[in-house]
Amino acid sequence: MAKAELTLGVERDLKMRVGIVTVSDRSSQGLREDTSGKLLNDLIKTIPADVVGYRTIPDEKNQIQATLISFVDDLRCDVVLTTGGTGMGPRDVTPEATSEVIEKEIPGISESLRREGFKQTPLAILSRGMAGVRKGCLIVNLPGSPQAVKEAFEILKPILTHTVELIQGRVTDCQKVRE
Amino acid sequence: MAKAELTLGVERDLKMRVGIVTVSDRSSQGLREDTSGKLLNDLIKTIPADVVGYRTIPDEKNQIQATLISFVDDLRCDVVLTTGGTGMGPRDVTPEATSEVIEKEIPGISESLRREGFKQTPLAILSRGMAGVRKGCLIVNLPGSPQAVKEAFEILKPILTHTVELIQGRVTDCQKVRE
Amino acid sequence: MAKAELTLGVERDLKMRVGIVTVSDRSSQGLREDTSGKLLNDLIKTIPADVVGYRTIPDEKNQIQATLISFVDDLRCDVVLTTGGTGMGPRDVTPEATSEVIEKEIPGISESLRREGFKQTPLAILSRGMAGVRKGCLIVNLPGSPQAVKEAFEILKPILTHTVELIQGRVTDCQKVRE
Repeated sequence: MAKAELTLGVERDLKMRVGIVTVSDRSSQGLREDTSGKLLNDLIKTIPADVVGYRTIPDEKNQIQATLISFVDDLRCDVVLTTGGTGMGPRDVTPEATSEVIEKEIPGISESLRREGFKQTPLAILSRGMAGVRKGCLIVNLPGSPQAVKEAFEILKPILTHTVELIQGRVTDCQKVRE
Repeated sequence: MAKAELTLGVERDLKMRVGIVTVSDRSSQGLREDTSGKLLNDLIKTIPADVVGYRTIPDEKNQIQATLISFVDDLRCDVVLTTGGTGMGPRDVTPEATSEVIEKEIPGISESLRREGFKQTPLAILSRGMAGVRKGCLIVNLPGSPQAVKEAFEILKPILTHTVELIQGRVTDCQKVRE
Repeated sequence: MAKAELTLGVERDLKMRVGIVTVSDRSSQGLREDTSGKLLNDLIKTIPADVVGYRTIPDEKNQIQATLISFVDDLRCDVVLTTGGTGMGPRDVTPEATSEVIEKEIPGISESLRREGFKQTPLAILSRGMAGVRKGCLIVNLPGSPQAVKEAFEILKPILTHTVELIQGRVTDCQKVRE
């Protein structure tokens, strides 16, 4: 994938396959524009990746899980980013849904999103979002607001490609990235 | 509750109902003054809230859980703050007791208390305190020492009212707070 | 142990007993030098402690657990530090192995290692390392690279002795350390 960064658009198969899942009762009913999902779609264009799936679904645990599983197992996504449903309201279940479909949790990703977000607004610490691995795919829960999505993506961006390489065992050592 | 902030003391029913639980073998036996609980009681007076329950109990898991449940279910607390029992000693069980009575964990609150506390003293990271939601009530475990309680409250204070509003579904969007 | 700090080398029984476990398929087969384990061994010499156990084992959950249990229960270690196996690769299972042999997790230690490591390299947040207590012994998972081990040890060093004292109930109050 390092090569893909140099030859973007030429070796398309080396670009990451990304799925976007907007979790929102109102957006899924067409009552609110899916600003955060569209923003993610635009942000993905700034990295060596293709959006291969994009779905807007209600805050229903079953539908969230089915979508995550389909994006990983069927669409062969390297990364799935969700937006919405990470709060503390009665309908917010994205972290619970995610925790049951991942094989390994990566707590440091969510910790970082909250910590760096805290510098912008203290309320960022209220996101209960998770991050983890399913079948070689990195799944990360982002908060729902466009501003929070933008900030979170800035944090993820520098580590995204290498994280996927580590998850998929294509590199086994963090050392080279330090150099 | 935003209105209550402007008219403090007039619309009393809009003030938050807060419970304080000191968890300490020695304080519950009268062998040590409950400095941290009293400090919390004073600190609560600086926000739009009333202390509706205040109990000092030993480091017994059953008693901690019974108190948390009673404060939430019977006293209808909006917030319950505990102090003590978050360490690593054989008798420290406040996090374990709390984890079983909350419906959703909010890891970012405890992460923030440890991280900001770390700037004052590295030992702050040893607190195993949890935070979460039970029936629309925010429960937060604070460490036992008065200094740690003071520091933790300073971190919680700016987000406390809005966190409760989010938990109780009275607002559904963090966006307005950013503005 | 406070006394031991003043009389290092005289009252040997007050020095901490430390175990080092390198988890690495390649190092355990002799295909790679165990640089991180040796580095830890050198770093331990800079604190009031003795290395009483040092083993290099493959990324096998059973062997990791058996080693941790043996180091705590048989060698009576006060501290066991592991290096390696905290990543997201298919073979990385050190956190999973550790979580099943500890009685209490201390999330703030791992959070701190990731957060402080992040300042050196963003990839530090990918370590899934855990920290916790088994029978009065502090177990901490460190990442595998020598540079990460060095950085993590610098963070642990100032709190290590007092953490063990708190775990073992020899002191019950963090207050004195603040003074």
